[in-house]
Amino acid sequence: MKFATYHDGSRDGQLWVVSRDLTLAMPATGISASLLSAIEDWDAVSPRLASLYDRLNAGEEPFATRFEPQRCLAPLPRAPQWLDASAFLNHGRLMDKAFDNPPSPDFETIPLIYQGASDDFRGPLADVEFPDDALLIDVEGEFGVVLSDVPMGTAAEQAEAHIRLLVQINDWSLRALGPREMRAGFGFLQAKPSTAFAPLAITPDELGPHWAKGRVNLPLHVEINGREVGRARGDEMHFSFGQLIAHCARTRRLSAGTIVGSGTVSNADRDAGSSCISEIRVIELLDQGAARAPFLTWGDRVRMEARLPDGSAPFGVIDQSVVRT
Amino acid sequence: MKFATYHDGSRDGQLWVVSRDLTLAMPATGISASLLSAIEDWDAVSPRLASLYDRLNAGEEPFATRFEPQRCLAPLPRAPQWLDASAFLNHGRLMDKAFDNPPSPDFETIPLIYQGASDDFRGPLADVEFPDDALLIDVEGEFGVVLSDVPMGTAAEQAEAHIRLLVQINDWSLRALGPREMRAGFGFLQAKPSTAFAPLAITPDELGPHWAKGRVNLPLHVEINGREVGRARGDEMHFSFGQLIAHCARTRRLSAGTIVGSGTVSNADRDAGSSCISEIRVIELLDQGAARAPFLTWGDRVRMEARLPDGSAPFGVIDQSVVRT
Repeated sequence: MKFATYHDGSRDGQLWVVSRDLTLAMPATGISASLLSAIEDWDAVSPRLASLYDRLNAGEEPFATRFEPQRCLAPLPRAPQWLDASAFLNHGRLMDKAFDNPPSPDFETIPLIYQGASDDFRGPLADVEFPDDALLIDVEGEFGVVLSDVPMGTAAEQAEAHIRLLVQINDWSLRALGPREMRAGFGFLQAKPSTAFAPLAITPDELGPHWAKGRVNLPLHVEINGREVGRARGDEMHFSFGQLIAHCARTRRLSAGTIVGSGTVSNADRDAGSSCISEIRVIELLDQGAARAPFLTWGDRVRMEARLPDGSAPFGVIDQSVVRT
Repeated sequence: MKFATYHDGSRDGQLWVVSRDLTLAMPATGISASLLSAIEDWDAVSPRLASLYDRLNAGEEPFATRFEPQRCLAPLPRAPQWLDASAFLNHGRLMDKAFDNPPSPDFETIPLIYQGASDDFRGPLADVEFPDDALLIDVEGEFGVVLSDVPMGTAAEQAEAHIRLLVQINDWSLRALGPREMRAGFGFLQAKPSTAFAPLAITPDELGPHWAKGRVNLPLHVEINGREVGRARGDEMHFSFGQLIAHCARTRRLSAGTIVGSGTVSNADRDAGSSCISEIRVIELLDQGAARAPFLTWGDRVRMEARLPDGSAPFGVIDQSVVRT
């Protein structure tokens, strides 16, 4: 199934089901008002949502309308919780070099995950506002999972069964603020403004064999101002989503609708490019002696889409411009 | 006004208005289903809530029932966001000694605030479950504020006008996990399990002169297994709540219902005791050469209440026992 959330003036938005080929859409508000309420009541409502999805794909919904990404908020405009990992160790190693952090001894065995703000996510085509471009505006292309209720102490092997939906993420970041917040030890706050999401949240079966071992095995195409800078694949994630969920649930329950992110998708193969500017810059520094790629400024545009082998974008497209508050 | 949230099986709970003297209560569900929805629509609903509160205090609500703290969830059982500061520098300095952290050069000018989980708060009398007491179970007695929508870039002087309610908090902490998570730079996750709240969220006017300069000027009485260990006052907070809010809103909007915490209430005066065990231990270490106070284990009990000069507890009482999952 594929779900979008249309703007309707409410904080949680209006749930729509979108056809597999992203051409048609139908409101699902007769079944569940919002995607959050659907996730909270998944066992009861998902069969009816599946029926609607099947009819939509079969062309049997006479009142279906054209899918309109410009009406989309983030699939969950607000979520109970947002936990973002750094599960691609290639990215982590490069960022440690960029920030001049000493490598952690637990790097390969304990996932790094920060608690982010989940009250105000950005839609796929929404302008992103910042107060000052001297804060070094950057992006992070990621994959994520939306969970059902997860009990405290759930093991990694059981955790994957709690994944209800997959999402594609742009974790906006302010690099001038990150290193100080990391050193202070309390984690990111000002350095991690509102996160943005591709329009569609999809059930894992939509990816067929490209969802495997708790990882999204697709390339994430990242363009900055029309130039492709990254096409890194999601299967190089060191920790699976199941392992990330288990880490998060060790000492607490996770509520239905919790989103866990992969962190910046990154491959050891240099030809895959990068899913964030900081990584491009540290590679330039290492390979060419100087970082040249600029951080973003007013009017700059970022496009991100994961692609299936047939070229289609199962999550739709993130396409955002940077503007001044 | 004073608000409580009764358990009704829903995730947000049922909004009740409680009389000033905490004897009587009336459901406010005819006005607003939950405290979160009231906060989101405050300008429209607060006059009607105020009328109900006035009638309740005047004994003019014939269907009022006895206030039952044992039915209470946290006033907001889940909130859009939970941002917890360390605004009592006396506590921060002692904890830096305890964790052997080098003092930050910005310590007195930039607040330390972590993003916490806000999806699953604990009620005032709820047992708190942990998987293992070797994780060094500790408490942190705090005050907090519940906000209306705060625009990005709101200055400290304007921020205080967004405070709708005051709350009293026990920020449960696992000390065995904190130092590693601080060193790793991504902030607290496993070290900060679900936070607990006193039963009543109150409008600032309820404290009269004891809400001043953006601070709660009351002692917070903390008892562990029946022995009072702390009575530190809230007015020694180095940063005001307005300053903390401005810090949080620098690069993002804050949604209505966001909770900002003070961090552990702590006074330089040793006679005030401490609002957490770690602080007791580091003081023992400094003053007596060895830390003796044990962290908590199964069956241990923690009671916290702020007190007005007349001995009454404006937020009600937190009284929790530690249990094994």
